[in-house]
Amino acid sequence: MTAQNGEASLTASDITDSSALVHGLTAEEIRTLTAKCIEAKAAAYCPYSLFRVGSALLTHSGSYISGANVENASYPVGSCAERVAMGSAVFAGHRRGDFRAIAVATDAPEPSSPCGMCRQFLREFCGGTSRL
Amino acid sequence: MTAQNGEASLTASDITDSSALVHGLTAEEIRTLTAKCIEAKAAAYCPYSLFRVGSALLTHSGSYISGANVENASYPVGSCAERVAMGSAVFAGHRRGDFRAIAVATDAPEPSSPCGMCRQFLREFCGGTSRL
Amino acid sequence: MTAQNGEASLTASDITDSSALVHGLTAEEIRTLTAKCIEAKAAAYCPYSLFRVGSALLTHSGSYISGANVENASYPVGSCAERVAMGSAVFAGHRRGDFRAIAVATDAPEPSSPCGMCRQFLREFCGGTSRL
Amino acid sequence: MTAQNGEASLTASDITDSSALVHGLTAEEIRTLTAKCIEAKAAAYCPYSLFRVGSALLTHSGSYISGANVENASYPVGSCAERVAMGSAVFAGHRRGDFRAIAVATDAPEPSSPCGMCRQFLREFCGGTSRL
Repeated sequence: MTAQNGEASLTASDITDSSALVHGLTAEEIRTLTAKCIEAKAAAYCPYSLFRVGSALLTHSGSYISGANVENASYPVGSCAERVAMGSAVFAGHRRGDFRAIAVATDAPEPSSPCGMCRQFLREFCGGTSRL
Repeated sequence: MTAQNGEASLTASDITDSSALVHGLTAEEIRTLTAKCIEAKAAAYCPYSLFRVGSALLTHSGSYISGANVENASYPVGSCAERVAMGSAVFAGHRRGDFRAIAVATDAPEPSSPCGMCRQFLREFCGGTSRL
Repeated sequence: MTAQNGEASLTASDITDSSALVHGLTAEEIRTLTAKCIEAKAAAYCPYSLFRVGSALLTHSGSYISGANVENASYPVGSCAERVAMGSAVFAGHRRGDFRAIAVATDAPEPSSPCGMCRQFLREFCGGTSRL
Repeated sequence: MTAQNGEASLTASDITDSSALVHGLTAEEIRTLTAKCIEAKAAAYCPYSLFRVGSALLTHSGSYISGANVENASYPVGSCAERVAMGSAVFAGHRRGDFRAIAVATDAPEPSSPCGMCRQFLREFCGGTSRL
């Protein structure tokens, strides 16, 4: 699931119970996840790309855990928002089977999806039923 | 600063005010940092190396922020403890100049120090006065 | 495309012109790609995982470029075979649109496919017509 | 060792036998290494940073092996020049003890040195006698 702040972005009012059903989440959960990842974006440290990314995870226990991108002068050393969020979640004790959904927010008009490295990182902990 | 749980490890009673002075920290701060990174180690996800690592950061505002290693089936995709801790700290709003010290704990008898990738990640946020 | 050396592995005689057609390659090209990635595996530096991986790329100009995994004591610092191969290829001047196929060989009985990080690395240079 | 193409750069005529001695290399070896890493820079794929980096390794057997940075739309997925060069070298069969020196060239007026991640990658293969 991806959210943007731009003109073309998803707004809370766009989220109906029927769209929520597609993700297996309630409309309220999608609204919260959307708000959390947009909020997370504000904490991004991205002086090199100027491309802010926020991410939020929803666990089966109902917790929301967020992260933002943390860049480095040596580009390959930085971390994406999704891995910052998942790192915190795993450190907090969450493991495979605990995750229901992850959402990502950027400033781009089009939705973005996690890069391959993050998908691989997430795959270690997300079963077939986690929603993207 | 490195702490271990093994026989050769640093114990709280070994920490005197004079050793603390070397690090520019109080003995109490070193004890807490040591305890925090040993505690963090318990949250490590390391089914591939079986090498648990915990890390704790101390900020100038007096906060302790911890992390542990999060491995991946594709080894290069995993994250070290230091980057999980620093990722959380940056996401929490800490930036260059906010950090006083970082400590690392493993199960090895000899002290370990952060890998080059973590040193590069930390360098983005640690001025010349942060203690390792 | 994946090849193994184990009992269940693909052998040159299994490769018919009809299976080759599925990949858009000739049987001869598949045989060469298979041989190249198995041969590449021998150069793997993997003292930590003991999991050898070889990879070979085929370009539109008919070149085969190989790589193997290069691990590091700090696991996240190592590189997969696919990125070693693609790094050499890009350094040799190949760019997006130049690649026809990539093949990967391991010692596992089941075929392996590139990790998410490698898929992301490859994506930068492979158009929709490159075969995996 | 670092070389640039800019005004302040090292030129072949600056390299005397006495400066070469500092590095444990002959003046001719330093000249070749310098030329190789400047030449390597031309192969950089860096549409995101526009910061070209070339690197060249010199082995004890007298081989020069080069690499350049290969960036990715997802910044952390890219590779630095030093790791592309060392990946090729390890794939070619070179191991710990085989390396005499590594040189890096950029377009910046000031010399650059390898990032922490590359230092960690190089450390796996370079003994205490390799020159930087």
